[in-house]
Amino acid sequence: MYNVDINCDMGESFGAYKLGNDKEIIKFISSANIACGFHAGDPSIMRKTVEMALENNVAIGAHPGFQDLSGFGRRNIIISPEEVYDLMVYQIGALYGFVKAEGGRMNHVKPHGALYNMAAKDRALAESIAKAVYDVDSELILFGLSGSEMIKAGQTVGIRTASEVFADRTYQNDGSLTPRSNPKALISSDKNAIKQVIKMITEGKVASLQGEEISIEAHTVCIHGDGEKALIFAKEINEALSMSGVQVKSLR
Amino acid sequence: MYNVDINCDMGESFGAYKLGNDKEIIKFISSANIACGFHAGDPSIMRKTVEMALENNVAIGAHPGFQDLSGFGRRNIIISPEEVYDLMVYQIGALYGFVKAEGGRMNHVKPHGALYNMAAKDRALAESIAKAVYDVDSELILFGLSGSEMIKAGQTVGIRTASEVFADRTYQNDGSLTPRSNPKALISSDKNAIKQVIKMITEGKVASLQGEEISIEAHTVCIHGDGEKALIFAKEINEALSMSGVQVKSLR
Amino acid sequence: MYNVDINCDMGESFGAYKLGNDKEIIKFISSANIACGFHAGDPSIMRKTVEMALENNVAIGAHPGFQDLSGFGRRNIIISPEEVYDLMVYQIGALYGFVKAEGGRMNHVKPHGALYNMAAKDRALAESIAKAVYDVDSELILFGLSGSEMIKAGQTVGIRTASEVFADRTYQNDGSLTPRSNPKALISSDKNAIKQVIKMITEGKVASLQGEEISIEAHTVCIHGDGEKALIFAKEINEALSMSGVQVKSLR
Amino acid sequence: MYNVDINCDMGESFGAYKLGNDKEIIKFISSANIACGFHAGDPSIMRKTVEMALENNVAIGAHPGFQDLSGFGRRNIIISPEEVYDLMVYQIGALYGFVKAEGGRMNHVKPHGALYNMAAKDRALAESIAKAVYDVDSELILFGLSGSEMIKAGQTVGIRTASEVFADRTYQNDGSLTPRSNPKALISSDKNAIKQVIKMITEGKVASLQGEEISIEAHTVCIHGDGEKALIFAKEINEALSMSGVQVKSLR
Repeated sequence: MYNVDINCDMGESFGAYKLGNDKEIIKFISSANIACGFHAGDPSIMRKTVEMALENNVAIGAHPGFQDLSGFGRRNIIISPEEVYDLMVYQIGALYGFVKAEGGRMNHVKPHGALYNMAAKDRALAESIAKAVYDVDSELILFGLSGSEMIKAGQTVGIRTASEVFADRTYQNDGSLTPRSNPKALISSDKNAIKQVIKMITEGKVASLQGEEISIEAHTVCIHGDGEKALIFAKEINEALSMSGVQVKSLR
Repeated sequence: MYNVDINCDMGESFGAYKLGNDKEIIKFISSANIACGFHAGDPSIMRKTVEMALENNVAIGAHPGFQDLSGFGRRNIIISPEEVYDLMVYQIGALYGFVKAEGGRMNHVKPHGALYNMAAKDRALAESIAKAVYDVDSELILFGLSGSEMIKAGQTVGIRTASEVFADRTYQNDGSLTPRSNPKALISSDKNAIKQVIKMITEGKVASLQGEEISIEAHTVCIHGDGEKALIFAKEINEALSMSGVQVKSLR
Repeated sequence: MYNVDINCDMGESFGAYKLGNDKEIIKFISSANIACGFHAGDPSIMRKTVEMALENNVAIGAHPGFQDLSGFGRRNIIISPEEVYDLMVYQIGALYGFVKAEGGRMNHVKPHGALYNMAAKDRALAESIAKAVYDVDSELILFGLSGSEMIKAGQTVGIRTASEVFADRTYQNDGSLTPRSNPKALISSDKNAIKQVIKMITEGKVASLQGEEISIEAHTVCIHGDGEKALIFAKEINEALSMSGVQVKSLR
Repeated sequence: MYNVDINCDMGESFGAYKLGNDKEIIKFISSANIACGFHAGDPSIMRKTVEMALENNVAIGAHPGFQDLSGFGRRNIIISPEEVYDLMVYQIGALYGFVKAEGGRMNHVKPHGALYNMAAKDRALAESIAKAVYDVDSELILFGLSGSEMIKAGQTVGIRTASEVFADRTYQNDGSLTPRSNPKALISSDKNAIKQVIKMITEGKVASLQGEEISIEAHTVCIHGDGEKALIFAKEINEALSMSGVQVKSLR
C-alpha cells in the first residue's frame, strides 16, 4: 500500500476578483496551499479558505510569495535572503492567525511561483525559507521541488520536508523540470500524466524527456486549481490512484 | 504604591522611509505597539522592532490599522465589521509570526489611528476587534480609549482590557477626548500634561475642559514617538511618575 | 431624432485577474470608462483597453477611483477635497499617457464607485473633481449623476458635463437613486428598464418609485459590463433605442 | 564656454514619510527628476514638487521606476520589455497630468534605480523605455548613463538623449560605473568628485579606476538629494563649475 498527498494552491482570489474553483477542487485533494495576501489572497479570502479546508478535512498550508500582486508572484525579484526570511515569517504568521482563530492547525508551507523556483536553485534563499518555517513552528512541513535545494536546505535546518512532483510536467536527466520555454515541457495527455505520477509514487522513478529512467522522490503531487480541465483532472487522478492502490492522504 | 503602563507606537518606518526614534524612546516605555504592515511597517522592520523590544524587556503588542499606507491609517474607511475582524486577525497573526520566531510572547493589541477612533464610538466595529483578538489568543490584552465602546466590547467578549489615557489631550465632561478641531484639544505644557496623568493614575480623576472633575480609568498612558519633544517628554514623565510613587511597568 | 450616449466601465481586470467581458460589450456602447489603476486596472490592461476602444471607434474616458484595489473602489474613504483633486489629476494623466501614445484623444472623465457616489452629494469633493478635470484638459466632459452636485460643480467650474442615468435603477421624488438597501432599488425586468430609459431620453421624465412623474436630464446611459445578463441587455437596449428613433453616439 | 545640466531626484517622500531636502537642493540644480508614485512619491507630493520646480525655474522630468515601494525601486524585477513600456507610459502620463494642470511643460524622463541600471545593459528594455518616452511625447529628452544601451536605444528610436555622469562614482576602462560592491566604487573626496566632473565636461575625458584616460560624454550630472552632505556638495559643485567657466543650465 502506497500513500501520496495531493496539494493544490487555493485562496488566490482577491477582493472583487475571483480565481480558481476552490469549492469543487477541494474535494479531490488532501492539502491546500493558501495564498497569504502578497501575490494573491486577502484577509477575508484567507479566513474563508481556512474554514473551507477545515470543513473538508484538508491539511492547511501557507503559500507565501513575493509581494507582487500585479505579477501574481511569478516575477523574479532579486532580494536578499534576509528579506526572504522576513516575508516568509510575515505571511506564515498571517495565515497562522486565521488557523488559530478557527481552531485548526497549520500543517505545511509551500512557497509560491517565482520564490519557489528561485529557491529550488539558490541555496541561500532556500535556507532562509527553511529557517523561517522552522522558526515560526518547527513542526511544519516544508514543500519543495523534489531534488531541489529547498529540500536539501530543509534537511540542513532540521525541518521535515515533502518532495513535490508535477503530474503534467516533463523531467530532465538531472531530475529538474523541463523549462516551460521548451515545447515539450508539458504533458498534454491526462493519461500519460497520471501514468507518470503512479510510476513516481510506486517505483520512485520517472522517464526523463531524454528517455532515461531516473530516480525521484514523490511525497506530494501538485495539481492546478484553475482552468477548465483542472476539476476533471483532479477527479481522474484521484480515481486512478485509488485503483493503483495508492491512498491519497495528507502528510500529517 | 501605584502602577501604570506607558505605551508607544513603534516600527512605523517603511522600506527606505524612516519614522520615529524607536531606539531611544524604547528606554522610557513599558509597552511597544508594533505596526503590522498595513498603515506602516514592513516585515523587516517588524522583525527588528520585535528584537529591540525583547532586548529592552518591553511588552510587545500588535498595532493593526487600515490598509492605507498613503494615509498612514488616519483616514476613516467605511468597511464592515466582518472585514475589520479579518484585517485584525491577519495583522495580529503576522506580528505573531515574528514574536514566535524570536522566542517571545505577545502581550497586547492596540488598534491604530482611524480604526482606533472609529471603534471607540462604534460598538459593532469594537466587538469585531475584540473578538478577533480573543480568537487569535484569548490571553492578549486589548488596549482602548478609557470609557470607550472598545473597552465595553472587550468586557462583553471576555478579553482583558487596558484603559488608555493621553497625557497631552484634554477631556470633555463625558470622558471623551476634546476633538482636535478644538484649539484647546492639546495640553502644550509638559508640566500640566504630567500633572494630569498623575492625577488620573493616583486619584482616578481628570479635570474636564469645562472644569468638572470626572472619573477616569487609567491603566496605560500613550506617548508619542516622533517629533523633537517626544524623547524629552518620555524621560520627564518617567521621572515624574517615579517621584510620585507610580511604578512604570507593563500590564502582564 | 434623439441622441444618447451609452457608457460602460472597462479595463477593470488586474494582472492575472480577469473581470468583465470587454471585447463583446464594447460593440454595443459609445463611451468606454477605463479604470486607471487605483481601484482596478493596471498599465498593461489600460493600454490594451485604449487600443480596443480606438479599434471600435468608442469614445475614451478616464474612470478614476479611490486607491483601494482590495475594496474595488467601493468603500467610502474620508479624504480632503485637495487629496481628491490630486488623485484625479494623477489617474487622468496616467490614462492620458496611453491615449497619447496610441494617437487617440480623451473624451471624458467619470469618477468610479464610492468617489462618484460621495461627490454626487458633497459639493466640495465635486468641485475638486471638476477642477481637476478642467485643469488637465478643459475640453474633457465630466460624467456625473443627473441632478447631482457633480453636474452643478462642473457648471460652476466651466467644464462640459454629461448627465448620467441608470437603466436598471429606480428613482426617488427628488431625482436621486433609490438606495440599494431598499428592495425596490433595482428594476429587474429588462423591458421596464429599457422603457424607463427611452422615456428619460425622449420625454425628459421618469416615474419615481413613489409614482410621481419627475423631470430628469439624460445625456448618457450607464450599463454594466459584468454578469451574465450584461451582454444580452447591452444588445437589447441598443436595438430598442434604434427602433424608438434614438441614435446611440458618443458626446463629442 | 561650456554648459552642463545638474539633475537631482525629487519628490521621493510618500504620505507621512519625508525623504530628501527638496526645498533647499532645488536652488542648486537645473533639472528635477520627479518620482511618479511607483517606487516613491504620491499624487499630492507630485503636485507640490511640480509647483516647486516651476517656482524655481527648474526643468521638470518624470522619474519612473518599478512598482516596488517597499524596495524603493532598487530591486531588480524581471519583467518583459512590453511591461516596461506600459509602466513607463503610465508614470510619464501621471506626471504629465500635474505638469499640464500647473501650466508647465515636461522636459525629460529619467528611469529610476534598478530600472535605470538594468536598461543600461539590456537593449530590449532600453528600447521599450525609449519608445515609451517617444510615444507619449517625442520632444522629451531621455536621460541615461553615458555610453549605455539606453543612450543607444534613444538614438535608434529617434529621441533626444542626455548622457548622464556621476560626480561621486569611479569609472571602469569600458566607461561603465565601478560596481558598488567594489570598495573603490565611490569617490569620497568632494574635491576629487568635482575635479572629475569638470574634466568630463570640459575635456570629455575621465580617468578610469585602472588609471587610463577614457572618453566620456557628459550632458547632465546627477547629484543626490538626501544625506547630510548633499546640500553642501550641491552648493560646492555649483560654485566650482561657475569658476571653471561652466554654465549650469537645463537641456532645453
